[in-house]
Amino acid sequence: MTELKNDRLIRALLRQPVDVTPVWMMRQAGRYLPEYRATRKQAGSFMQLCTSPELACEVTLQPLARFPLDAAILFSDILTIPDAMGLGLYFSEGEGPRFKHPVRTEEQIATLGVPDPEQELRYVMDAVRLIRKELDGRVPLIGFSGSPWTLATYMVEGGSSKDFRTIKAMLYERPELLDQLLDTVADAVTLYLNAQIRAGAQTVMIFDTWGGALTPSDYCHFSLKPMERIINSLQREHEGQRIPVILFTKNGGQWLEAMTDTGADALGLDWTTDLSDARRRVGDQVALQGNLDPSVLYASPAHIREQVAKVLASFGAGSGHVFNLGHGIHPGIKPEHAGAMIEAVHELSRPYHA
Amino acid sequence: MTELKNDRLIRALLRQPVDVTPVWMMRQAGRYLPEYRATRKQAGSFMQLCTSPELACEVTLQPLARFPLDAAILFSDILTIPDAMGLGLYFSEGEGPRFKHPVRTEEQIATLGVPDPEQELRYVMDAVRLIRKELDGRVPLIGFSGSPWTLATYMVEGGSSKDFRTIKAMLYERPELLDQLLDTVADAVTLYLNAQIRAGAQTVMIFDTWGGALTPSDYCHFSLKPMERIINSLQREHEGQRIPVILFTKNGGQWLEAMTDTGADALGLDWTTDLSDARRRVGDQVALQGNLDPSVLYASPAHIREQVAKVLASFGAGSGHVFNLGHGIHPGIKPEHAGAMIEAVHELSRPYHA
Repeated sequence: MTELKNDRLIRALLRQPVDVTPVWMMRQAGRYLPEYRATRKQAGSFMQLCTSPELACEVTLQPLARFPLDAAILFSDILTIPDAMGLGLYFSEGEGPRFKHPVRTEEQIATLGVPDPEQELRYVMDAVRLIRKELDGRVPLIGFSGSPWTLATYMVEGGSSKDFRTIKAMLYERPELLDQLLDTVADAVTLYLNAQIRAGAQTVMIFDTWGGALTPSDYCHFSLKPMERIINSLQREHEGQRIPVILFTKNGGQWLEAMTDTGADALGLDWTTDLSDARRRVGDQVALQGNLDPSVLYASPAHIREQVAKVLASFGAGSGHVFNLGHGIHPGIKPEHAGAMIEAVHELSRPYHA
Repeated sequence: MTELKNDRLIRALLRQPVDVTPVWMMRQAGRYLPEYRATRKQAGSFMQLCTSPELACEVTLQPLARFPLDAAILFSDILTIPDAMGLGLYFSEGEGPRFKHPVRTEEQIATLGVPDPEQELRYVMDAVRLIRKELDGRVPLIGFSGSPWTLATYMVEGGSSKDFRTIKAMLYERPELLDQLLDTVADAVTLYLNAQIRAGAQTVMIFDTWGGALTPSDYCHFSLKPMERIINSLQREHEGQRIPVILFTKNGGQWLEAMTDTGADALGLDWTTDLSDARRRVGDQVALQGNLDPSVLYASPAHIREQVAKVLASFGAGSGHVFNLGHGIHPGIKPEHAGAMIEAVHELSRPYHA
C-alpha cells in the first residue's frame, strides 16, 4: 500500500500532533458541486451513480480537485445494506429514499439475510479499491455505514419519517423483535465496514442520523449498544496502520459520555454542543470531529472565516480535532464558500498546533 | 373571577403539593380529534378557525369534554403576531404557513410596528375571555406565544424552513439587524402575553420551537436573551393570583441551566432529556413539564401505560412536575390512546404525592 502523503486526519483522530487542523465535509461529494450534478445526470439515476465503481470514484475525487481537503469519503448511500438484503431501494422524486419491501413482521425479520459484502455489495468494495488506487496516497479514504438504528428506521418505515411511528410502535410493543432486527443489521454493518477496511478504507465512520430521536434510555439500548457491538468487532488495524473509528449521533450532544465509552476513537458533533464543553466532558478518551453549522456557509466568505475562527478557538490548542460541518453541506451552497471555510481552517488553526 | 375548581396545574407549576400529577397535551385541541376536524371544516380555513373567538373557544373546549385534562390551552396559531404586523399569513396546502411579505431589509425591519393586542389581535383576546367564561373555573387556561427567535424564523424565511438559510445569513452577516428585529418581536410578544393575562390566561407558555437549531452561544444571544427580557416584563400576578410562566425550547436539553436563570417558573422538556437528570440540574428553581415521546401514543394502551409509568418514575416523588408530551400530539393518534395516557398519569402518579 502507498504511504500516506497527508496523514493529518488519521493523526488527529488518534490525538497525535499535526501541523494544522485537518478538515473535510460531510457530503463533500454532492449536489452543491456543478461537476457532481453533471456526473449524476450522466449516470441517469442516483442508484446508478452509487452502483458504478467508476462513477462513484469520480465523484468521490471531485471535491479534492477543487479544495485542499484532508480526506476523501467514499461516495455511497447509507441504504446500500438494506438494499442488498432485498428490500428494493428506490428514490422517488421529492420523497427521498423508499423501500419496496419494508420489514415489519416477525417472519420478515427472521428471514432477513446478512449480505456478503464482497458479493451483494461488491460494487461498494470495488469503488473503495478504485478510489484508493486513484488517490495514490494523497489523503486517507474514509469508509462509512449508517448505524443499525438509523438503517432500521428506513427498513421498518419504508422510507424517511418524521415521527417514526411504525418502528417506535415496534420499540414499545415488541422490543425483543426490534432487538432481533438490530442484531441482524449490526452483523451486516460489521461485515460491511470490515470489508471496506480490507478493501482500503483507512478510517470508518458510523452515521447515526436518527439516534437523537430517541429517549436517553432507548438511545442507549437501541442505538448505542448495537454500535458498540460493531465497534468491538471491527478490524482496528490493517497493513500495519491503525484504523480509527468515528461515531456520529446527530442531536446526540447530551450523550457524549456514553458514546465515549463505546471504544470509538472520535466522536462527531453537530453545532448544538460547544467543542470546549465537549472536550471537558470526554477528556483525553476520544478525538472530536465538527462542528460548524452548515448554514454558516450561506454567509459571505469573510463571515465564514469569523465562524471558523470561533469553532477553532472553542476546541483550543492541541491535537484531537478534525474540522467538519455539523451535518452534510446543503445543496444550495456556493462551492467558493466551502473553499473559504477550508482555507480558513488551515490558516487559522496553525497557532493552535505551534 | 371564578375560583379554580381544579388548580393542580398552577400548583405544580409553582412547585406546591398536589394530589396527582396534572396533565395536558401540546396540541390537545387538534386534528387527531374528529370533532376538531368537523369544526375546522365548518370554519372553511384554518385562519378562519383562529380568528373566530366562538370557534376557537369551541375547539379549545373539545378535548376537555372527552378527557379529564387539568388545563385548557388557548386554540390559536403562533404566527398571529407577525400576521398582525402586516406580513400576510396564509396556509398553502402541503407547505404549511407562509407569509406574503417576508421581512428582510433594514427598512422593512425599521418600519415594523408592534401590534396593539386589543386592536389588531382582539380576536385572540376575545377568545381568551370567552374560553374563561365557558370554562367557569373548571381548569386553568394556558395562554401562549411563539418565542421571538421562532417567530423571526418564519418572518424572515417567509415560511417553514429546514436550514434557516436567510435568517442565519442575517445572523452571521448583520447580527445587529437581527437584534433589532428580535427586539421588536419581543416587545410585541410581551404586550401580547400581558394582554392574554389581563383577558384571563392563568399561566402563559413561550414556545421556542426552533431555538434548538442554533449553536449554544447563538441560542443564548438570539433566543434566550429576548425570552428573558419578555419574562422580566410579564405581569406575574393577576387578580391576586400568581401567573406562572413556562419556557419550552424544543431540543434545548443541553441548555436547561441557562433557561432556569431566565426567571421562568417552569421549563418544558422534550423526550431526549431524562426528567431525573433535568431535576438534578435545575434543582428547586423551576418546575418541569413533559416529556413523553408523542410517538408512544402509536403503541397500544397497555404499552402507553408502561411508558407513562417510566416518565413518572423518572421525575420521582414530590411536586413540580406537569405531565405532557415532549411535543405536539401527532394528527394520526387515536383519541382513546390519548385518553389512556391521561388516565394512567392520574392513576399512577398518586403514590408520588402521598
